[in-house]
Amino acid sequence: MRQGVIRRFRGWLPEVPDHAVTTIGEGDTPLIEAPTLSERIGAKLFLKFEGMNPTASFKDRGMTVAMSRAVASGSRACVCASTGNTAASAAAYAARAGIKCFVVVPAGKIALGKAVQVLAHGAEIVQIEGNFDAALRISQQIAGDRGDVTLVNSVNPDRIQGQKTGAFEVCEVLGSPPDALALPVGNAGNITSYWKGFSEWRDAGYSGLAPRMLGFQAEGASPLVAGHDFENPETVASAIRIGAPASKEGALAAARESGGAIESVTDDEILAAQGLLAREEGVFCEPASAAGLAGLLKLAGEGRGPEGTVVSVLTGHGLKDPDVILDRVELPEPVAATFEAVAGRMERLVP
Amino acid sequence: MRQGVIRRFRGWLPEVPDHAVTTIGEGDTPLIEAPTLSERIGAKLFLKFEGMNPTASFKDRGMTVAMSRAVASGSRACVCASTGNTAASAAAYAARAGIKCFVVVPAGKIALGKAVQVLAHGAEIVQIEGNFDAALRISQQIAGDRGDVTLVNSVNPDRIQGQKTGAFEVCEVLGSPPDALALPVGNAGNITSYWKGFSEWRDAGYSGLAPRMLGFQAEGASPLVAGHDFENPETVASAIRIGAPASKEGALAAARESGGAIESVTDDEILAAQGLLAREEGVFCEPASAAGLAGLLKLAGEGRGPEGTVVSVLTGHGLKDPDVILDRVELPEPVAATFEAVAGRMERLVP
Repeated sequence: MRQGVIRRFRGWLPEVPDHAVTTIGEGDTPLIEAPTLSERIGAKLFLKFEGMNPTASFKDRGMTVAMSRAVASGSRACVCASTGNTAASAAAYAARAGIKCFVVVPAGKIALGKAVQVLAHGAEIVQIEGNFDAALRISQQIAGDRGDVTLVNSVNPDRIQGQKTGAFEVCEVLGSPPDALALPVGNAGNITSYWKGFSEWRDAGYSGLAPRMLGFQAEGASPLVAGHDFENPETVASAIRIGAPASKEGALAAARESGGAIESVTDDEILAAQGLLAREEGVFCEPASAAGLAGLLKLAGEGRGPEGTVVSVLTGHGLKDPDVILDRVELPEPVAATFEAVAGRMERLVP
Repeated sequence: MRQGVIRRFRGWLPEVPDHAVTTIGEGDTPLIEAPTLSERIGAKLFLKFEGMNPTASFKDRGMTVAMSRAVASGSRACVCASTGNTAASAAAYAARAGIKCFVVVPAGKIALGKAVQVLAHGAEIVQIEGNFDAALRISQQIAGDRGDVTLVNSVNPDRIQGQKTGAFEVCEVLGSPPDALALPVGNAGNITSYWKGFSEWRDAGYSGLAPRMLGFQAEGASPLVAGHDFENPETVASAIRIGAPASKEGALAAARESGGAIESVTDDEILAAQGLLAREEGVFCEPASAAGLAGLLKLAGEGRGPEGTVVSVLTGHGLKDPDVILDRVELPEPVAATFEAVAGRMERLVP
């Protein structure tokens, strides 16, 4: 039974007193075998499905640590600049902790559909007449000014600490680290976290090895591949639509130290991979999550794919972004309400 | 680590050969303490959050069993009449199993937003010029006619078998059955399943007790309370908008044999309960899921609430139905992109 990542991995995490532990049962997500896709990439592939966290993304692993420590330090509110998964997670964990949550966003840039969790959990959305950088800067200023407000953006180091627990779970289930780990790279906090986790696991003597870290950015938002920030990042994968990653150094170090790489994939490759995951393995993730598989398919196609055991981290649930599916479908015409008509439709597809 | 309900509870379930086991890591969902709501209802409340299943609803527990046995029997396709959680789960598990999935629905009655998972997983939606009864009847006829097509609506008894595993998990985590279990009642398969699970647990000698089963229907779709079917059921809680429950007898037996009851709650009570769960405990469920808490609050208000340990089953994730949140919100006006403006907004709420 899932007790949350703090109780499960306490010795590995920053200190949290019992009374402050704020959990909604995050972590312990399944590592799902992917037999069909394994054949496509020529390695044994597992999917770490982080969409099965309380707010349906991996952000909950870090947020439980950040929010618990905010509570422990006496915070009465938290603040973040985010229009996506971070805000959803912050809103849920703040509600759980009984403190107020403020989400600062550029005016007009928040799609209501993306904000449904923030709104449901009763967080306050503050729209500012400025861009994302201004939202983050003001959030930092407020947390710096008021001792009772905690910043929970990824610059909060407790977030990285919590997210590294995904690596521990992978090692526990497989019995050893995989040969490679593939994941999307946007703000670059998650690749930094996983590498930290695998490194600590190795340094603690549980294994002599650590996986090659393979990070994949969307082509239109690939500052780590291009070597410079993107002023106007563009990709269908909104969760990694970031032009100036906060954890740039951590991501580059992860790739370098592990003998891995950070490369890019196109939006078409991302959407194709998302479709394969849903239609061949039954796992529906948001577009950004599919960047890892898109990258593995690309490497395999070029004869450079990893061998052995490979884990792809699916960072969020497909329900986070329904429009990307709905924008591309059309329902077939209705048929008569008879056995013959429906059986005929079926017969054409399953003779 | 989650291995799926078949591997976990094999001795309690219909036979499935190893090669046919079709799992996406369903089950083993968290049982979340609800300290704030416990005070409101005057009993120790736990939330069984079934939204943390692969397709974000409890349906996955039954679907893994139904689909695995369909595969074992040589099925090449499955069919169901559903526009909601059943269809989403069937589509995912059929994709996983590598068989085709047909979802038969009344033309014009499927909201695309509700069908996003069905579409993502590549199931075929067949719209018919008829009502839901016709869709179900034709689906049954097709499964009866073709030996290689399995009906996966809740009339498939494997579904009930799989869903009963939720009761086992509750007993395992608490160490004994709770004093009462509260849950929404629509088609009535889940209350039937949980009662079957608790009864089997007791009959196997693991406990001398079984909980009072407290089922709650939405007032506008409450045939079990009214004593007659509803021709036009109406409620905001779409997952329990059912006028003629398939498992009516099972639900009535569960209430009778356990010393429980089936009562109704209004849409306003359901939405208020959904809001409390999200804002006070950090758990965002779909409206139907909140019917259990709505009922517990109603009983407590009338001095008839259960005492001791109470579990409320939250059947699906709030992301399943974003519109119910978005239809009721309005964002506050933007403020200037300055520290002072944002700090001022915050100051008003957290002085």
